[in-house]
Amino acid sequence: MTFHHCSIIGLGLLGGSLALDLREQGVAMAITGIARRQATLAEAAGMTLDGHPVFTHLSAELSAVRNSDLVVLCTPVQTTIQQLAELAPHLAPGTVVTDVGSTKRMIMNAATLALPPAVRFVGGHPLAGSDRAGLSHARRGLYQGATWALCVPPGAEEAAARLAALLGQIGARPLPIDPDRHDALVALTSHLPHVTACALANRVLCSEYGDEVLAFIAGGFRDATRIAAANPAMWRDICLTNRDNLLTALDSLTAEIAHWRAAIASGDAPHLEALLTTAHDRREELNQGKK
Amino acid sequence: MTFHHCSIIGLGLLGGSLALDLREQGVAMAITGIARRQATLAEAAGMTLDGHPVFTHLSAELSAVRNSDLVVLCTPVQTTIQQLAELAPHLAPGTVVTDVGSTKRMIMNAATLALPPAVRFVGGHPLAGSDRAGLSHARRGLYQGATWALCVPPGAEEAAARLAALLGQIGARPLPIDPDRHDALVALTSHLPHVTACALANRVLCSEYGDEVLAFIAGGFRDATRIAAANPAMWRDICLTNRDNLLTALDSLTAEIAHWRAAIASGDAPHLEALLTTAHDRREELNQGKK
Repeated sequence: MTFHHCSIIGLGLLGGSLALDLREQGVAMAITGIARRQATLAEAAGMTLDGHPVFTHLSAELSAVRNSDLVVLCTPVQTTIQQLAELAPHLAPGTVVTDVGSTKRMIMNAATLALPPAVRFVGGHPLAGSDRAGLSHARRGLYQGATWALCVPPGAEEAAARLAALLGQIGARPLPIDPDRHDALVALTSHLPHVTACALANRVLCSEYGDEVLAFIAGGFRDATRIAAANPAMWRDICLTNRDNLLTALDSLTAEIAHWRAAIASGDAPHLEALLTTAHDRREELNQGKK
Repeated sequence: MTFHHCSIIGLGLLGGSLALDLREQGVAMAITGIARRQATLAEAAGMTLDGHPVFTHLSAELSAVRNSDLVVLCTPVQTTIQQLAELAPHLAPGTVVTDVGSTKRMIMNAATLALPPAVRFVGGHPLAGSDRAGLSHARRGLYQGATWALCVPPGAEEAAARLAALLGQIGARPLPIDPDRHDALVALTSHLPHVTACALANRVLCSEYGDEVLAFIAGGFRDATRIAAANPAMWRDICLTNRDNLLTALDSLTAEIAHWRAAIASGDAPHLEALLTTAHDRREELNQGKK
């Protein structure tokens, strides 16, 4: 049931952390790392765990996946979509292919079109990550306790079960979900907060007050905008492959802000306090893990 | 030049942390703590630093300020405004009175109207705080490195210099500023992020998907909404005493979001990437302390 040789394409925070976890758990005997940039490959060659190299093979070529029974694409969504087509001729029958992209509909469609029938594709999305991108921030345990959404096409049920077992070994929580529903949910929980944080960062840090704002920035603004420092190319792809849901989410947030605006403009203290109390209570429940 | 007896009115995160810092630095020989709730007074009575009580006196009555040469109001803004009038008969000539409220115009006006001419009022606002409210979260060093805005009315220059010296001793950075400019700046850097975080929290945590969203929440949303868990009554007062600036800030953020929406809706990848890159670069500069 287990996998013998895993190829990880794209060696950033997600791919690098996955390699560390697989190596630590001993769930893959061989791990091939594939990255375009020589500097990344050199950095990956130096990665060790308990004195042993994390990667058994490293390559700049997608053809290096040839001997793998598991291939994990860890690149930005549009790159993943391109690579699915480029990978197709190099995949042995029975290979399980998955990804870590933050949107799932376009990737599922691309995999259906690009991959040979004897290859099994299962879409994946770990709800993990950080504003700290790149292989240098990779760490063990990144996926501990994190939901790992799985989109399972008809016929890929056994592949998904094998993959879910592996993800469970590294502490993630596999959760099967329809790609449409996935994309609608993450538009709210992840893509909307990202665009909001970026818009807020630009509004405040590029304001008419220039650097005078800096002395008046405290922890609240830092927290609220932290994710704005994440990888721009990755987020460009996410926004543009989940456009419909993200636009709906942005419109609903704009309506919510207008609702708050009205309470503030009217000086309606009890209404404003009720809104603030709801936010406080819901957010506190999330802190406490009560929900 | 130094103060001999400091009264702190309102024993929450800010008041409690200030008491700890004053005690540690030895900058006040006597510290009176004043709070309405008996439970808070009981908690304050148990606070020690290196085996010694932090507060030399505790009371539920504002009249307990009688022997102080420094009075610091650490209550929500509207409460501070009410207490300025209630305090007036109990203040000895020459007493320096200050506050820690997040908006300054209404407090400065209230102090001018309420306090006797022989008392010196200097408005204060430390850019510190947290989503963790209450005396139980008070800690030493909360103000270390934090801007402490000071609004200095004509005639209060000497009082402000004494206060600034004391604030410097506890590691804060006193920054004189006009109340109008203060309120405009913090509307952008603090009040706008707060309302945005709260609106985002309510939009996502009270959505049509109910608790299904919870599995899809990761660090980005948690960071972006953390401040929503702060004290609702305190923030009600802040919003309503800085209404004009906050409404302007909300409108400008709504316009910024509309700008992002247009880039996403049109599928303009280079424009969207440019917006994301600006947010990344500015936020990263803030992380690096380059600005």
